[in-house]
Amino acid sequence: MSIKALFFDVFGTLVDWRSSIAREAKAVLEPNGDKLGHHIDWVAFAEAWRAEYQPSMEEVRSGRRGYVLLDELHLENLARILPRFSLEGLSAETRRSLNRIWHRLDAWADVPQGMRRLHTKYRLAPVSNGNIAIMVDLARHNGFVFDAILGSEIARDYKPNRAVYLASARALGLEPSECAMVAAHSSDLAAAAGCGLRTAHVARPDEYGPATGEAKPTVAVDFAARDLLELADLLGT
Amino acid sequence: MSIKALFFDVFGTLVDWRSSIAREAKAVLEPNGDKLGHHIDWVAFAEAWRAEYQPSMEEVRSGRRGYVLLDELHLENLARILPRFSLEGLSAETRRSLNRIWHRLDAWADVPQGMRRLHTKYRLAPVSNGNIAIMVDLARHNGFVFDAILGSEIARDYKPNRAVYLASARALGLEPSECAMVAAHSSDLAAAAGCGLRTAHVARPDEYGPATGEAKPTVAVDFAARDLLELADLLGT
Repeated sequence: MSIKALFFDVFGTLVDWRSSIAREAKAVLEPNGDKLGHHIDWVAFAEAWRAEYQPSMEEVRSGRRGYVLLDELHLENLARILPRFSLEGLSAETRRSLNRIWHRLDAWADVPQGMRRLHTKYRLAPVSNGNIAIMVDLARHNGFVFDAILGSEIARDYKPNRAVYLASARALGLEPSECAMVAAHSSDLAAAAGCGLRTAHVARPDEYGPATGEAKPTVAVDFAARDLLELADLLGT
Repeated sequence: MSIKALFFDVFGTLVDWRSSIAREAKAVLEPNGDKLGHHIDWVAFAEAWRAEYQPSMEEVRSGRRGYVLLDELHLENLARILPRFSLEGLSAETRRSLNRIWHRLDAWADVPQGMRRLHTKYRLAPVSNGNIAIMVDLARHNGFVFDAILGSEIARDYKPNRAVYLASARALGLEPSECAMVAAHSSDLAAAAGCGLRTAHVARPDEYGPATGEAKPTVAVDFAARDLLELADLLGT
């Protein structure tokens, strides 16, 4: 097995979208004047926004809709959930401001150091459904070390469709078997394995709150680690 | 003027392709057994290979040919020049080995430190005609700090066609005027300015041998520097 590149899932695997969205949405909206924070469950707000993620991408994956950037889907999904929180009156500017939170989500604590170790031996790239601008901003916000931004935008499709994994390997001039997908979600790893990639599961048990995430993979994987530091151990860096 | 990203030309601006190709081609071929080095002017070999660069891209730019990666054009261009050096008998494997030299060209001396300074304030990306795999490998070889790999492969066209500059700005979610093209070639900067980008000229007077390159821009630019360190000064980093 000769792995040359590691492909990272990002939302949930590298960054804690749930806590970050909850905290930052509160920070964006509370100074707006009407003390919205007194009435809103911000974690529920984050989870409601994220719950629209898969259905919105499914329109593209199924071919019913042409490729659009995740930034745009996020904004549409926000419009869909705002009435549930009595926030349908928010201005376009405030909506854009909320949408930018996806560009500054905080990493899980082990990620920056784990990536620096992995980078000494492997090419690293996000293979995320997030578009390039989101990935660039998350990397600068958290000190991620990426060699390239691959994934959805270069494939113009969304995971788990095969094109995303295959276009990402091809962009590095590598065979799928020379690339390993790193993710906290077994469904992502199963799809990557189906394209011939190696797979590494990283446990993020608290992704949706305490003990809600996958503590272990539910599919066969090449590596399983509790965090990126253990993955760096397993991969000899 | 609010610049948020710097787009780098690479061949000639960041890396010294001429000396690197000459030295490495000699190193690849001499151990091949027949002491080819005794008969070949390796600088002439490098320049001959590079001279096929613009004509080969022009086939794509003009629309006569669909987009193909620069790695593939380099290999075709190599086949075109080999007979002139009595090297037409080289195996496919040796040709691929020569072609990989474009992935490990050496940077001009000021580049790594200049980029690290510029990275503290600006998003940095190559906007080169080289494909993603070449850019990733050059960055790892030289310690370049890029936030993303933009340019030709994401636009599926070649500079100086407008699509390359415009797709690169769009990928970062920026207006063209928020991006500055950094290049040693006035033609590249003129094309970028025509798309609304800011421009910065970096002098590489020795690109084709002593005093052959542009010591100063031949078009109006926003910044002109003798190297990336001076550019970092000019841009306040």
